[in-house]
Amino acid sequence: MCESTAYILKNGREELVLESVDVIENNNDGQVKLTSMFGEQKTIKARVKEFSLVDHKIILEST
Amino acid sequence: MCESTAYILKNGREELVLESVDVIENNNDGQVKLTSMFGEQKTIKARVKEFSLVDHKIILEST
Repeated sequence: MCESTAYILKNGREELVLESVDVIENNNDGQVKLTSMFGEQKTIKARVKEFSLVDHKIILEST
Repeated sequence: MCESTAYILKNGREELVLESVDVIENNNDGQVKLTSMFGEQKTIKARVKEFSLVDHKIILEST
């Protein structure tokens, strides 16, 4: 399974946003929509800074 | 294994950019750096439009 965990950088620390993320969509309005394998969705004002498939880790930063 | 294949949208069609992508980094200068599991790196002027871990597919679009 390839689901990853999304974190957002706040003051240099990683805060959990959503686990088991399956789909990441970058909207043109500076928002990122995350969808988990359980269908849970979160849209936050951020952009994907880094994504490591090896570590199963998505790092977001506020826009 | 979770490596994904990166494509860039050109005239509505998906063109292959890099296979077996392990790490995606979004630079602040509108460039995306992709690194494959074999250490191959590609930096292109684009942004991540959508990323589906289920389909192992990264869709980029030019910036």
